[in-house]
Amino acid sequence: MANKSGQKKVVLASGVFDLLHLGHVKFLEEAKNAGGPYAQLVVVVARDSTVEKTKGRKPIMPEDQRCSLVESLRVVDKAVLGYENLDIGEVVKNIKPDVIALGYDQEDMMKQVLDYVNKNKLDDQIVRIGKFGEKPLDSSSGIKKKIIDKRERLSYAESKFGQSQ
Amino acid sequence: MANKSGQKKVVLASGVFDLLHLGHVKFLEEAKNAGGPYAQLVVVVARDSTVEKTKGRKPIMPEDQRCSLVESLRVVDKAVLGYENLDIGEVVKNIKPDVIALGYDQEDMMKQVLDYVNKNKLDDQIVRIGKFGEKPLDSSSGIKKKIIDKRERLSYAESKFGQSQ
Repeated sequence: MANKSGQKKVVLASGVFDLLHLGHVKFLEEAKNAGGPYAQLVVVVARDSTVEKTKGRKPIMPEDQRCSLVESLRVVDKAVLGYENLDIGEVVKNIKPDVIALGYDQEDMMKQVLDYVNKNKLDDQIVRIGKFGEKPLDSSSGIKKKIIDKRERLSYAESKFGQSQ
Repeated sequence: MANKSGQKKVVLASGVFDLLHLGHVKFLEEAKNAGGPYAQLVVVVARDSTVEKTKGRKPIMPEDQRCSLVESLRVVDKAVLGYENLDIGEVVKNIKPDVIALGYDQEDMMKQVLDYVNKNKLDDQIVRIGKFGEKPLDSSSGIKKKIIDKRERLSYAESKFGQSQ
């Protein structure tokens, strides 16, 4: 499956990818699948400053480590850090994707992408990737919650029995 | 670089791989390098029960998710779950590695491997992989500490100022 110029399709996906888990990998695999068997997957990893601006807190893992870890996944052909000002138009202009894949929780990004694509009369295919199951550890916040819960149970045990479990 | 029978060298590495981070990836890359450019890297991922027995607590991520995530790394050719009884001899007998790679913190495993290899007069190459830098987030416990510290600072701010930061 190739684009109009006969080249392999380029798929663009983006995200924070803090505390890498299987949900991230499944999202990226599904995104790449949307570009056909020979697709190239380029992933834009959100800057710490962008995450702080949009979510009110920095990720646990710094941006360079999140980006390198994403690039070490077999499914990913290239991972780059996003732009400080979160301008998805700039990203699309530079990467020139054939397919733009968006996760179930990327509502705002979806609006920005649609606006940009319509305004510039581009024929990029936009695909929405669903959520995979409902496992609590398929999300960064679920992992953080489990770590904190374990710590709190340990602190409680220490305060009650004077020693760790 | 091939083994005596002219085949690609098989490198065996093992670990828990809880909260996957760049330190894990660097360890696996270095392990694979030890087998030459065409090496196949097989990774044995420790069972939850084995980790509980040796470290006194289960990992945050369950064994099937840790194993699948390790296998989704480009550097890894195959990832399998370990044996319940932690018998490294059984692992070596089944996988028949040319090279056994051990991390800087796998002291006990090192002794078991050396005992097994010497006892069975095997000519496996055993390589020790050093620690990469001293970044606090290049370890699962460092990541857990950061998550707990952030949570505690937030709880303190909430109790002092009646709202979250």
